[in-house]
Amino acid sequence: MASFSEFDFIDALPRQMGKGCSLGIGDDAALFGSPPWAISSDALSEGRHFLNTDEPEAIGKKTAAVNISDMAAMACEPRFMLLNLHLGSSWRDASKCDAFMKGFLSELARFNVSLIGGDTVSSESEGLHCSATVIGSPMAQTPVLRSGAKVGDVIAVSGPLGGSYPKRHLQVEPRVAFAKALVSAVNVHAMMDISDGLSQDIGHILDASRVGALLDLASIPLHQDTLDGEDLVQSALSDGEDFELLFTLSAQAFEKASKILPLFPIGRIVSGAGQLRARVDARAPYRPLERSGFRHDG
Amino acid sequence: MASFSEFDFIDALPRQMGKGCSLGIGDDAALFGSPPWAISSDALSEGRHFLNTDEPEAIGKKTAAVNISDMAAMACEPRFMLLNLHLGSSWRDASKCDAFMKGFLSELARFNVSLIGGDTVSSESEGLHCSATVIGSPMAQTPVLRSGAKVGDVIAVSGPLGGSYPKRHLQVEPRVAFAKALVSAVNVHAMMDISDGLSQDIGHILDASRVGALLDLASIPLHQDTLDGEDLVQSALSDGEDFELLFTLSAQAFEKASKILPLFPIGRIVSGAGQLRARVDARAPYRPLERSGFRHDG
Repeated sequence: MASFSEFDFIDALPRQMGKGCSLGIGDDAALFGSPPWAISSDALSEGRHFLNTDEPEAIGKKTAAVNISDMAAMACEPRFMLLNLHLGSSWRDASKCDAFMKGFLSELARFNVSLIGGDTVSSESEGLHCSATVIGSPMAQTPVLRSGAKVGDVIAVSGPLGGSYPKRHLQVEPRVAFAKALVSAVNVHAMMDISDGLSQDIGHILDASRVGALLDLASIPLHQDTLDGEDLVQSALSDGEDFELLFTLSAQAFEKASKILPLFPIGRIVSGAGQLRARVDARAPYRPLERSGFRHDG
Repeated sequence: MASFSEFDFIDALPRQMGKGCSLGIGDDAALFGSPPWAISSDALSEGRHFLNTDEPEAIGKKTAAVNISDMAAMACEPRFMLLNLHLGSSWRDASKCDAFMKGFLSELARFNVSLIGGDTVSSESEGLHCSATVIGSPMAQTPVLRSGAKVGDVIAVSGPLGGSYPKRHLQVEPRVAFAKALVSAVNVHAMMDISDGLSQDIGHILDASRVGALLDLASIPLHQDTLDGEDLVQSALSDGEDFELLFTLSAQAFEKASKILPLFPIGRIVSGAGQLRARVDARAPYRPLERSGFRHDG
């Protein structure tokens, strides 16, 4: 029973359930229509994704931001949003809901996203359960999927990782402008946002692209919030909720994009479907890296 | 505080929040893109929309069906669905979730809808909080909105009303085929599905269309499930969760459509924005009808 909370029920459904759309379950967003629209949904529960002591405005902002981040991850411009709220007993308070909506709508305004629908119902629980659905359109010719990584690609991230909890887990900064600048300049082969931690999330690109990866742990940019921790690299690999972009592109494209954007190279794509290896520095051998985090005994 | 649970937070947001889409908050679905896509979201909470003693398969079926019904209400073909689940302690049980998904997916299969995304998270509550988002495309040239009712229109429903709880509140039958046959045959001016009860829901058409309505209570088709009740008409007016279609069309269109579909005329559209009046039989005078239900002292 305990492990069930970690089981992503939706991801486990067969991919063929998505027939009729060009990309179904298993990426940051699904694609439908022609020209394609991207759509994605993220759910948040009180006590898991935010606390009852957090500011309602910050909770509203996060609810919008994590969804907008999924559009950046696909190189899609976020356009429209729907919001569902299950209001528990502690949320049937107009000023608290107003504060939530202030944060939610200000985040939408910042990214020029329109709220076009949703549903609000009461709940017999105490806390808030909410979810939002975001719709976007490709920034460049096509959305960037998790499945396009190629052997020889540079693996890079858009910013420093680790230590998001407790300092900035509510201050999610969707990398929309970064994604737009990146895909406008070069051809990006694969991309996603880092929500569960680098070592776990990169596995999704490796599986979808049927490639392997070699990571240079010393080159992973560490967020200053990791500096309180005992194992900085472990924090950067597994803390999650960074919402930086993780992407792969050719060495030439990396060189070109590096001139206009701060890119952080952290490794390269190699053959060997799903195999993730890492080295602690340039003189050390590559060793298998567990997707749940760095294997200290490896 | 008590009244807050009845306050539809999303509907209260200004309509201009939906800028950039052709129809925003305030109809059964929002429209975006060209040619238009319709999108709608419905949320369900355990203890409010279903009980912890209900069959998980029936709960899954209802979650899909109430969303599909919103597409029928817009004369749109349901195409794609996203599902969000917040699993409380009593739902972190694979067989219970499997049963939910069996009901959910079988309903999708019945209407040829593809599950393309969603999110599953755990919740600190005991029960299930879920929501789904459905996307569809117009069955005819354009979607049918709530705002198109014209003075002189016949008001009709697609089937008998009332008594849905407790007998059939989980057996929602989305009127997709009915909507398709109707809009293929004639021009429908306004349409919605009845989820909160006829007397409340018709107010949305009157407000959106800036017209009034005269209802003939004796002509409202009563569902056999109302027959246990004390006031059959009151039950048909206010029970809710019927999910029959409520629509308006010209007298000529009504005549034509009646030859191919079972239509139940219940009144007509008149001038007088938002004014709802009803008579108990053809010899009685029309009297104001409260939107929350029939005014017995009127």
